[in-house]
Amino acid sequence: MKLIRFGQPDQEKPGVLLNGTRYDVSAHFADYNEQFFAQNGLQKLAEIIRNGPGQLPVVADDVRLGSPVARPSKIVCVGLNYADHARETGATPPAEPVLFMKSTTALIGPNDDIIIPRNSVKTDWEVELAVVMGKRASYVEEADAADYIAGYALHNDVSEREFQIERGGTWDKGKGCDTFAPIGPWLATADELGDIDNLRLWLSVNGRMMQDGTTAEFIFRIPHLISYISQFMTLLPGDVISTGTPAGVGLGMSPPVYLQPGDVVELGIDGLGTSRQMLKAYGQN
Amino acid sequence: MKLIRFGQPDQEKPGVLLNGTRYDVSAHFADYNEQFFAQNGLQKLAEIIRNGPGQLPVVADDVRLGSPVARPSKIVCVGLNYADHARETGATPPAEPVLFMKSTTALIGPNDDIIIPRNSVKTDWEVELAVVMGKRASYVEEADAADYIAGYALHNDVSEREFQIERGGTWDKGKGCDTFAPIGPWLATADELGDIDNLRLWLSVNGRMMQDGTTAEFIFRIPHLISYISQFMTLLPGDVISTGTPAGVGLGMSPPVYLQPGDVVELGIDGLGTSRQMLKAYGQN
Repeated sequence: MKLIRFGQPDQEKPGVLLNGTRYDVSAHFADYNEQFFAQNGLQKLAEIIRNGPGQLPVVADDVRLGSPVARPSKIVCVGLNYADHARETGATPPAEPVLFMKSTTALIGPNDDIIIPRNSVKTDWEVELAVVMGKRASYVEEADAADYIAGYALHNDVSEREFQIERGGTWDKGKGCDTFAPIGPWLATADELGDIDNLRLWLSVNGRMMQDGTTAEFIFRIPHLISYISQFMTLLPGDVISTGTPAGVGLGMSPPVYLQPGDVVELGIDGLGTSRQMLKAYGQN
Repeated sequence: MKLIRFGQPDQEKPGVLLNGTRYDVSAHFADYNEQFFAQNGLQKLAEIIRNGPGQLPVVADDVRLGSPVARPSKIVCVGLNYADHARETGATPPAEPVLFMKSTTALIGPNDDIIIPRNSVKTDWEVELAVVMGKRASYVEEADAADYIAGYALHNDVSEREFQIERGGTWDKGKGCDTFAPIGPWLATADELGDIDNLRLWLSVNGRMMQDGTTAEFIFRIPHLISYISQFMTLLPGDVISTGTPAGVGLGMSPPVYLQPGDVVELGIDGLGTSRQMLKAYGQN
């Protein structure tokens, strides 16, 4: 299944994408939030689809998409999880996963504008495969991790490198600015995807390909990440784990290249669609 | 006003503490959550109290207290914000605030048990003054920051030092374990407190005083912290900022001392009451 959320910001309704047509399921579910996933929402949604989408209202193709998941309790991110990206940032590949958190107020739709924060000169891009949790997860064994996954989505882990690296303290300062988490267009359940460890992911800026990698280059694979994170904190249904970015970020270029107002970022992952964000300066309409 | 939440975990109801008596206000408010603060809940609560608590049901003194705020969108913490604590950890006082985030799943009531995580050998304590936001805050000026505060509460920023410092990546790994954020007993509005920059805060372990400091030692005061954090992320109503801990944590002792099952931590801040947590091993009943 491909889950979408559509409508104006903060008023999104849940829907599904079936053979290219969008359907409204808001008569059945309030939202794709913690309660939805915790209360077997995915199974109920599958039943509704099995009964035929004929009963469901169609949603026009030009309606805005929001993030396919409602604001989660947390967005946990994994740093330096592709060997080529670790090299370009000058870091040695980590011995165990590097974790940081993204303020959930950063969440936006897949084609919304990215706002360059005030005083930012180093706003950067990172195409990432995001995992959405389907169940409460604490001390999960790696072998059981797949049972805890609701699905996958495309994520641009937008990052302000000066805030992240040069302002003291942890990376969290440069990761959670408003609009720094465009997610979507859809949340795909595992059956929609091929081998999760062999997906192409790419990102272009103004049409120039900047990142073109594959999840085959993961240093730590998803079951390990879920097990690992769940040793340190409980993951709730609907929580997002973002699994790191391949080589080709602006920070890694020589000299570094950062995003400017008017730039257009496009990105995609096999089976998870594409997204497109325009950059705007803070306060620009 | 002193706001409390009472009842079983995940079923807490909102209440107020007036002259030592607890009153149930759940007929008027669903919870002390983002909506409550955003929709002028504090003002409505003040009106209810002005009309006399006679109409409100009394809550027995032996009912469990939960955190006085419902699970927020985020808990942003400030590291090394007391000069004496920076010294004891071997860090130089930071040039600007050090920020990190605590998983909100760590939130518990003020007198609940703290669970030592599996594989933890360095679980430590940190008495902190927590600020609860009353309004959405983005790019707030320091001079306006007070308008954005709903109130203050006592917080034990429980920390696993090996997870925090020795496991790679950011501090977030050692800060968000389940039960690592006992908050309360109450949320006090500013009028309940004296000079916020001159409050005594203390913490004892098994009756031995370990931390005994004052907010006069803040490196960065609260208006600066709110303004600063709001440059990097939007704070939502009900969000928690924890403002750092004074000297006397286990990590700073020579040799370091960490919490063991059966230990009892007690802490307090002038005007914000006291709390008491017993330590248990993971899986211990």
